[in-house]
Amino acid sequence: MSEPCRRRLVLAYDGTDFAGWQVQPDRRSVQGTVQAALGQLFGETVNVQGSGRTDAGVHALGQVAHFDDPKGWPLDRLQGALGGSLPADVRVLRVDDVPADFHALRSARRKSYVYQFWRSPHLGGKRALLSSVPPLLRRTHLACRSDLDLNAMRRAAGALRGTHDFTTLSKSMPGWRSTIKRVDAVRLLQDRHVLRLVVTGEGFLYGMVRLMAGLLLAVGEGARSPDEVPALLEARDRALAPASLPAHGLLLWRVDYPK
Amino acid sequence: MSEPCRRRLVLAYDGTDFAGWQVQPDRRSVQGTVQAALGQLFGETVNVQGSGRTDAGVHALGQVAHFDDPKGWPLDRLQGALGGSLPADVRVLRVDDVPADFHALRSARRKSYVYQFWRSPHLGGKRALLSSVPPLLRRTHLACRSDLDLNAMRRAAGALRGTHDFTTLSKSMPGWRSTIKRVDAVRLLQDRHVLRLVVTGEGFLYGMVRLMAGLLLAVGEGARSPDEVPALLEARDRALAPASLPAHGLLLWRVDYPK
Repeated sequence: MSEPCRRRLVLAYDGTDFAGWQVQPDRRSVQGTVQAALGQLFGETVNVQGSGRTDAGVHALGQVAHFDDPKGWPLDRLQGALGGSLPADVRVLRVDDVPADFHALRSARRKSYVYQFWRSPHLGGKRALLSSVPPLLRRTHLACRSDLDLNAMRRAAGALRGTHDFTTLSKSMPGWRSTIKRVDAVRLLQDRHVLRLVVTGEGFLYGMVRLMAGLLLAVGEGARSPDEVPALLEARDRALAPASLPAHGLLLWRVDYPK
Repeated sequence: MSEPCRRRLVLAYDGTDFAGWQVQPDRRSVQGTVQAALGQLFGETVNVQGSGRTDAGVHALGQVAHFDDPKGWPLDRLQGALGGSLPADVRVLRVDDVPADFHALRSARRKSYVYQFWRSPHLGGKRALLSSVPPLLRRTHLACRSDLDLNAMRRAAGALRGTHDFTTLSKSMPGWRSTIKRVDAVRLLQDRHVLRLVVTGEGFLYGMVRLMAGLLLAVGEGARSPDEVPALLEARDRALAPASLPAHGLLLWRVDYPK
């Protein structure tokens, strides 16, 4: 019996016009788009397994997926053919040969997400603020006030680090999976008007990164105090969390696997 | 006689769907779009003067323009109204009150442009390479090989710095203006797969930044040597320059004025 040729894909996509990663009936998904392209190339059904779902509108620079190549094509031929058959809003950045026991979801060790803000020097009100993002950044950045308290945000970020029950910052179904997650890093990187929240951890509950971003923004605006964060987490009550932030500011940055 | 209320605008635009900055008959221009919005707000014709033209497809994060406000509106009202009436691909980042002798073109002291590359790890050929840019970067970055010789590019960049006759790297009409320009800085900034060429100078000839970028890319690919650059400039012959690069990789980053 011959081994299947398992391939790992590193994918980048603009989530704007996708209903998310996962296949859904009658909606345009990234997984469905990649499966359709591979199915057409090989003339048979191909299942693509991602490292996890991304929501409708969420982007990726380094989503990882695997599939079994029924024809055993060389990697350069595969990448070239996928580049020609996929639409412009999803691209294959890399193709690798991986062992047959590699699994994009189960083998993943760490994920990093980025939430991107544009600190607007805008003079108008809330609605004007939201429309003040430079056009080149409007699909990927959320406008926020330019006078955010970054020190308070960094203190709150520190309180989110570590292993906690993240029920308060999750939209997961109760009891669906463990709500205890290890968050390795929560960093705020400032580059002129752009502020990036980079979150790295073993994995994230449904909605967790956007709820973390919403909490940190509320802290930066002075609506919440960094001192509240431990009690918020301990309460395990999602009704206590500040509002989640829009999908378009979120980007799946990278997924790490054991060497 | 009352002084006119001169206003300075800092504008950002996605150049993809514009035929450039300058008004042209029957084509969509940034200048024409801003003039039309102001004309509608004030009920009279308003002339908008930019710091200079940008070509069709070239973007801006910090284009500067001035106009005279016939109604003397407060700045926050003006910015709010412009935010509501301009299309999504051109935004006003800032509005300032300036003296009546401020002139966006004539008062400008320095301009900075950025040319953005995606260093592709792609395995396929030239055509596949060009289509391998991550979707979120595809409107603003040109794909290039990942094995560029950055040291050679930095040497060539150094040879472009200073005051030179840039006829070789220009598409300007001969004799139209002086072809001698002072270039203050030519920097290459690397951030993982993204490579940015940042060029700062007192001003640039028509097509000059994209021709500079094309020369540096040719040096990085080994098609030209950094040692050729001084002789290329001295020859003052545009036929000797490597190909110009596409408009979509270019961004007008900022325009500086005396304090």
